Amino acid sequence: MHRALGHADGAAAVRACRVRLARIIEPSDTAGLVLLAALGPEVLWRSIEELSAPTATLQSVLTKAARELLPTARVPDLHTRFAAWRSRLPVPEAGLDARHAEQLGAWTVVPEDPDWPSSLADLGLQQPIVMWGRGDRARLADLRRSVAVVGSRNASAYGAAVTRGIARELTAAGWCVVSGGAYGIDAVAHTAALQTGPEPGATAAVLACGVDRFYPAANAELLGRICERGLVLSEVPLGCAPTRYRFLQRNRIIAALTGATVVTEAAWRSGALNTARHAAALSREVAAVPGDVLVGGSAGCHRLIRDDHAVLVSNGGEVLELVEPLGNEATVELRDAAQRAVRRPHDALDPVLLRVFDALPLHGDADPTQVCRVSGLSPSEVLTGLATLRERGLAVDSLLGWRRVGSQHGRTERGHTGAQR
Amino acid sequence: MHRALGHADGAAAVRACRVRLARIIEPSDTAGLVLLAALGPEVLWRSIEELSAPTATLQSVLTKAARELLPTARVPDLHTRFAAWRSRLPVPEAGLDARHAEQLGAWTVVPEDPDWPSSLADLGLQQPIVMWGRGDRARLADLRRSVAVVGSRNASAYGAAVTRGIARELTAAGWCVVSGGAYGIDAVAHTAALQTGPEPGATAAVLACGVDRFYPAANAELLGRICERGLVLSEVPLGCAPTRYRFLQRNRIIAALTGATVVTEAAWRSGALNTARHAAALSREVAAVPGDVLVGGSAGCHRLIRDDHAVLVSNGGEVLELVEPLGNEATVELRDAAQRAVRRPHDALDPVLLRVFDALPLHGDADPTQVCRVSGLSPSEVLTGLATLRERGLAVDSLLGWRRVGSQHGRTERGHTGAQR
Repeated sequence: MHRALGHADGAAAVRACRVRLARIIEPSDTAGLVLLAALGPEVLWRSIEELSAPTATLQSVLTKAARELLPTARVPDLHTRFAAWRSRLPVPEAGLDARHAEQLGAWTVVPEDPDWPSSLADLGLQQPIVMWGRGDRARLADLRRSVAVVGSRNASAYGAAVTRGIARELTAAGWCVVSGGAYGIDAVAHTAALQTGPEPGATAAVLACGVDRFYPAANAELLGRICERGLVLSEVPLGCAPTRYRFLQRNRIIAALTGATVVTEAAWRSGALNTARHAAALSREVAAVPGDVLVGGSAGCHRLIRDDHAVLVSNGGEVLELVEPLGNEATVELRDAAQRAVRRPHDALDPVLLRVFDALPLHGDADPTQVCRVSGLSPSEVLTGLATLRERGLAVDSLLGWRRVGSQHGRTERGHTGAQR
Repeated sequence: MHRALGHADGAAAVRACRVRLARIIEPSDTAGLVLLAALGPEVLWRSIEELSAPTATLQSVLTKAARELLPTARVPDLHTRFAAWRSRLPVPEAGLDARHAEQLGAWTVVPEDPDWPSSLADLGLQQPIVMWGRGDRARLADLRRSVAVVGSRNASAYGAAVTRGIARELTAAGWCVVSGGAYGIDAVAHTAALQTGPEPGATAAVLACGVDRFYPAANAELLGRICERGLVLSEVPLGCAPTRYRFLQRNRIIAALTGATVVTEAAWRSGALNTARHAAALSREVAAVPGDVLVGGSAGCHRLIRDDHAVLVSNGGEVLELVEPLGNEATVELRDAAQRAVRRPHDALDPVLLRVFDALPLHGDADPTQVCRVSGLSPSEVLTGLATLRERGLAVDSLLGWRRVGSQHGRTERGHTGAQR
């Protein structure tokens, strides 16, 4: 550590120090992260390892950097933090950790690496110190076009169906589905993404424990398949268990990695809402799928839409509109076609033409005077209107008078034919 | 008509002229409404009745008034309109109309009446010329605290259940339910309002035909009950049939009469969306109830929430929050209680305390050094944290060490007990 380092060695040393620091500094530990930003991983690691207590210099570095990086926050007490970090020493030998990772096919990615997901930088100081990963590392590039699909662990059949549809539409459009690897919605989203898309497997599970621990155990088989075809990621060191605190911290990574977070089903209390709020705080798009208001399974989604201004989405196409508002022509075309399909012949009529059309009898014929009286329009308006309707194939005239054409729909909303007065 | 009139006669004459004008001027006929505003009902009626064509003076009155009232609109061609109005002459004798109304127990209310619903003034020029009503006229005062509950004619069981619940909650809180008297959601809303509330019957049906024509026929029994206990209203003269144009015009009255419009169930195309847009244009509150995205029955509600920024509501309490945001303490209390009910003992813990709590084993005891190591907190943070947890009844200490108390919940989201590292 103290010898002069070449460039390649330097990168390896930075990585080794970050791995060690991640073992003693929990996510969002302000003092640790401020010092990391100010000193870099190597100097910070050496200071913690070698000093039994923080020096005055170290305290002044922290004070100065904290004032700059977090001007409104209280400067953390370095003595307390230092004691906490050192209570976790010694950490496993870097070589031992690396061998353990190698056996698993796991790797680490650090901010200094060219393939570090750049969107994590939006976390600022809260950016992970290092991330462990399993799966094809080249898949990290998939995260540039990714959407978080999250929700309740106890998903309903409805939530599962909605999630499956959205995950499939996203992967089919070339987007990577990011979720938390948990039961329920997370598992459905990953499973659907493993099955669909131009390159099936565009899915990443971000865990709250080490990537060597498949939690929950019942999802081990699924997580194994994600390792093979997608990505399993975590900022938590190998061997570490998921704690409630780590679940909450993990959610910020899911939110930051992705362009949008979609909550497909969540009850009033759900960790998915926490992910959605992280996404909103990071100015990511936040969307939620509504559901039955009488059951409560979607109450969290409704809360997000109602109170937090999440966008209501009903399908994957509407999610795609959020992340590729301009490029998503296929979706817009589909939607327009769907709208055209339900158009009725009189839909395009202006109010005057509609009144002329409505004044024509369904059966039998009417002369223009009758049409004037029923519609309340003037003779000239009626004559122009009738001619226009004939041109559009909506009316015909004969020696007997005028009648409407080509509409099974009656004059009124229910096909009622009562003439005025 | 040409004799000098006393005050009481004057009021009666104004009413008679408005009734006649409503027979020849359709809702939203700009020229007619501008002249009505400029000349008053008596002069306008006399002009139309007596002149075979508009005079230059009349045209200049229209031009001047239109420029003032509708500065951006094209001045309507009075000759065309005049011809249209006169094509509907002669109108029924005022006395005949009045006798017909009397037989039905119907009455007219005009803007000059003290009980004219003042909220209709927000329609400006589009305010109805006159309204016909059936039922206890004193109920017009109920409209001051009213909410429109509207939706699809082909309602699902879900839409009906949601509507019933909302209409009941509104009437129970002393609010009048306004709807359109149609099949489906309208009928469910009226029916529920007839059955509940401090004064059952706080409901008004606003029709698109004359109040003597119960349309649709299958709702005749319901409309009869509304006449007996609530109100049936229409701007359309007695005997007139509902036309599509009148349905659309009717919706503006429902929107204007009420403080909020709630769409409880509506497919992608639904007249209820038109009512909601009128309400939004009048700066009324607009709300919609979400539903299943896989079926399509609520697609119109989702569209309102997504594209038109309607407020998502799940129950009557949330509707009441819109119309009485300050006075609705009962609802807020209920909501808070519901939230408290699902609180878990550790919910109120700050992040440090949560980490100490999470680091305590579920079974067996831990000494503070272990807690330091597992939590990544300093000894002083751990000791303070443990003391606080003990104070709150969440931890106990003994000679053996510390353990957690009173939570069936494990360390992690699923009760996983794996120790760190």
